[in-house]
Amino acid sequence: MANTTDSAAAARQPLRIALAGLGTVGAGVIRLIAANGDLIARRAGRPLEITAVSARNRSRDRGVDLTAYAWEDDMTQLAAREDVDVVVELVGGSDGPALTLARNAIRHGKALITANKAMIAHHGLELAAEAEGKGVPMRFEAAVAGGIPVIKGLREGAAANRIERLYGILNGTCNFILSTMEDTGRDFADVLAEAQAKGYAEADPSFDIEGTDAAHKLSILSAIAFGTRIDFANVDTAGISRILAADIAQASSLGYVIRLIGMAEADAGENGAPGLFQRVQPHLVPVDHPLAHVDGATNAVVAEGNFSGRLLFQGAGAGDGPTASAVVADIIDIARGYDAGFEKDATFSITVADLEDMPTAPSGHRRGRCYIRFVVADRPGVLAEIAAAMRDAGVSIESLIQKGRPDDGEQVMVAMVTHEGPESAVTEALRLLEGSPSLIAAPLVMQILGK
Amino acid sequence: MANTTDSAAAARQPLRIALAGLGTVGAGVIRLIAANGDLIARRAGRPLEITAVSARNRSRDRGVDLTAYAWEDDMTQLAAREDVDVVVELVGGSDGPALTLARNAIRHGKALITANKAMIAHHGLELAAEAEGKGVPMRFEAAVAGGIPVIKGLREGAAANRIERLYGILNGTCNFILSTMEDTGRDFADVLAEAQAKGYAEADPSFDIEGTDAAHKLSILSAIAFGTRIDFANVDTAGISRILAADIAQASSLGYVIRLIGMAEADAGENGAPGLFQRVQPHLVPVDHPLAHVDGATNAVVAEGNFSGRLLFQGAGAGDGPTASAVVADIIDIARGYDAGFEKDATFSITVADLEDMPTAPSGHRRGRCYIRFVVADRPGVLAEIAAAMRDAGVSIESLIQKGRPDDGEQVMVAMVTHEGPESAVTEALRLLEGSPSLIAAPLVMQILGK
Repeated sequence: MANTTDSAAAARQPLRIALAGLGTVGAGVIRLIAANGDLIARRAGRPLEITAVSARNRSRDRGVDLTAYAWEDDMTQLAAREDVDVVVELVGGSDGPALTLARNAIRHGKALITANKAMIAHHGLELAAEAEGKGVPMRFEAAVAGGIPVIKGLREGAAANRIERLYGILNGTCNFILSTMEDTGRDFADVLAEAQAKGYAEADPSFDIEGTDAAHKLSILSAIAFGTRIDFANVDTAGISRILAADIAQASSLGYVIRLIGMAEADAGENGAPGLFQRVQPHLVPVDHPLAHVDGATNAVVAEGNFSGRLLFQGAGAGDGPTASAVVADIIDIARGYDAGFEKDATFSITVADLEDMPTAPSGHRRGRCYIRFVVADRPGVLAEIAAAMRDAGVSIESLIQKGRPDDGEQVMVAMVTHEGPESAVTEALRLLEGSPSLIAAPLVMQILGK
Repeated sequence: MANTTDSAAAARQPLRIALAGLGTVGAGVIRLIAANGDLIARRAGRPLEITAVSARNRSRDRGVDLTAYAWEDDMTQLAAREDVDVVVELVGGSDGPALTLARNAIRHGKALITANKAMIAHHGLELAAEAEGKGVPMRFEAAVAGGIPVIKGLREGAAANRIERLYGILNGTCNFILSTMEDTGRDFADVLAEAQAKGYAEADPSFDIEGTDAAHKLSILSAIAFGTRIDFANVDTAGISRILAADIAQASSLGYVIRLIGMAEADAGENGAPGLFQRVQPHLVPVDHPLAHVDGATNAVVAEGNFSGRLLFQGAGAGDGPTASAVVADIIDIARGYDAGFEKDATFSITVADLEDMPTAPSGHRRGRCYIRFVVADRPGVLAEIAAAMRDAGVSIESLIQKGRPDDGEQVMVAMVTHEGPESAVTEALRLLEGSPSLIAAPLVMQILGK
């Protein structure tokens, strides 16, 4: 960090940006700075200037003119350039060139901005510790929830609060699929194929639909909200691929919609020791809850602070424009000098050295209501078998419906909603039913989102 | 601003706070810092320490212990104290001691934090110009939308965007009244009395229910969103006191709820010159719009950026906890040194000297759909008279309903929704009907919130 005289001089100079990765988001950043550059210069007190770029393929047409920028074939070399103040990493991938570039940027004392949730989830602590040690800022607003300034909202806007619970819709692909299934009554595979055709889902959609992407984002938000070390490995993660059109219809008839929810809570464990609970799972969301109205590729995050109460941040969870908006917001923070006052910047709201290494809270002692759906053979005694397992495990059933599946006369769907009780009881009931020849598929359990 | 060595030393020292005004919010700030102080010190890199306080009445029991703090009988003297780095003004009122204290704080080089929307709406430009000239930060997150970090969201989170439209629910009292009327079918006066009894509405509720409070907040948000000088005087303001239970029922049957919406837009005028349009008015909000689900004292703000798309910020609009949360978030920004990088801090996202003095955009050329409700005498020909005025002014009616008022057999309510058209045509139609003996009360016009 420079002294006042140097800072004042620097403030008049353009902030020089190297851009690695020129996919839709990278091209979006170029377009944004071209379109809004004058306004941004007034807001930041200095212009933003892209000086150098790199991508895997130099010749691809991206619809933006790159001739004004220096080109590096080896993107990791961007960090070493004299004419660069900020390195923006938009390459993606938790390791490989993205990680090498990020490390190089920090070593060369350049501010690092990234949209790479996988890299932050896996290597964010290491990178932030290096950045804090070197006194260079590292920012990643675009890594979570696209254009929504939720990292800033938690790190700064809610900084006065102990966050009691954090949850939200963190994956636009899943939300598009679920809300389309809801609107059309169509099945998962059918809607997934449409999403892939429209470019809303990747050719290999597993990162999205199995909840990994949401878990990356949740682990980053948890660190900021609860002051804990990022713990992606212990996010209890389930995806949406087993949800049937019939589940959505059933939930609807009970007054719920189904959404993939990432949730984290600093939780007193059974022995009273604090633990961090992190889960990504499809939930039943009551129709009068704000998250029930989050449709399409929209994301939304709720943070419950001990003084603020419930804060909701909502917006576009992906797309070149929104993601570029978040990337450039980080750049503007640097241009304005929001990092300059720190002795050590607190990357995750607290410096890495001060983050707590909180154990994982077990889910078993959690209490709640849930939806359980079985697909069973259509023969006498199956319902009695399920009901007995519930009784023996101490699960109290609030409502139950049994329905033939229209596409298969030999299969029956049994769906129930439980009264509030320990999750461990539900686990026990399903254990009792394990291996039963009556069950045609593994049961599906979804928690019901509490108020 | 100090150089690096001084900053590093200062960062280890507590940030010393003077608190003026010890009402519910002031007491909330004291409670918050007591409850979350350790966590905040970890986040801010230094402890927050309240050193001096002042209020009108020293002896009143506020449920908080004041003995550790120096007391000033004259609150404006807090600014002169050697043991104060930040002055927090929670006195209220656009002028008087609050304004004197704010000016004194800046003159003495103290950071100024305030929750005073009326003072910022009326004197914010003058205060910010002085603060920017002296190089001291001035922050007012708590002045708009309680605990929601919407000023930070606009000023920083959305800083990369040209904001195209900004609108929201900015007054919790009105929203409580409207959503209670909706839930219960009760009349305005009845619900207002309940709100007053519960402390949700002031004894003199006119600032809230006539839209002034929302207009204060809107004018502040407009400056930040559009880079324009605060122009409270030209907010076109209407309140909610003329809304009948029958209007709410009518809106509901058409698929809308009624909300008091503050809206601002940088608008090309009839001659193409840019103008700033600012309006506070009850609107019909489609039930599938996110704002339709904002109930009770909740606030919500939508900002539409040219890259971010629609961003929604929602949370508690008032109350001691949420407001204290916003006040202390501002204090933490100062403690972290987020102001230290600025040559001149950009109080409204852009420095005051650079804000545009944009003329007011006229409403007449705006296009939209609206709801118009008449209370008329129950006699032949009245409907024909209204319909003729609409036809002559070129207003196209989408739907119309005529209903006897249950409480008065001689009065009839005529409510209509127009097709999209110029607002000037509606104004003209009402002008044609002005003075008609058929009209028992002035017609009520509410815009329909577009997608």
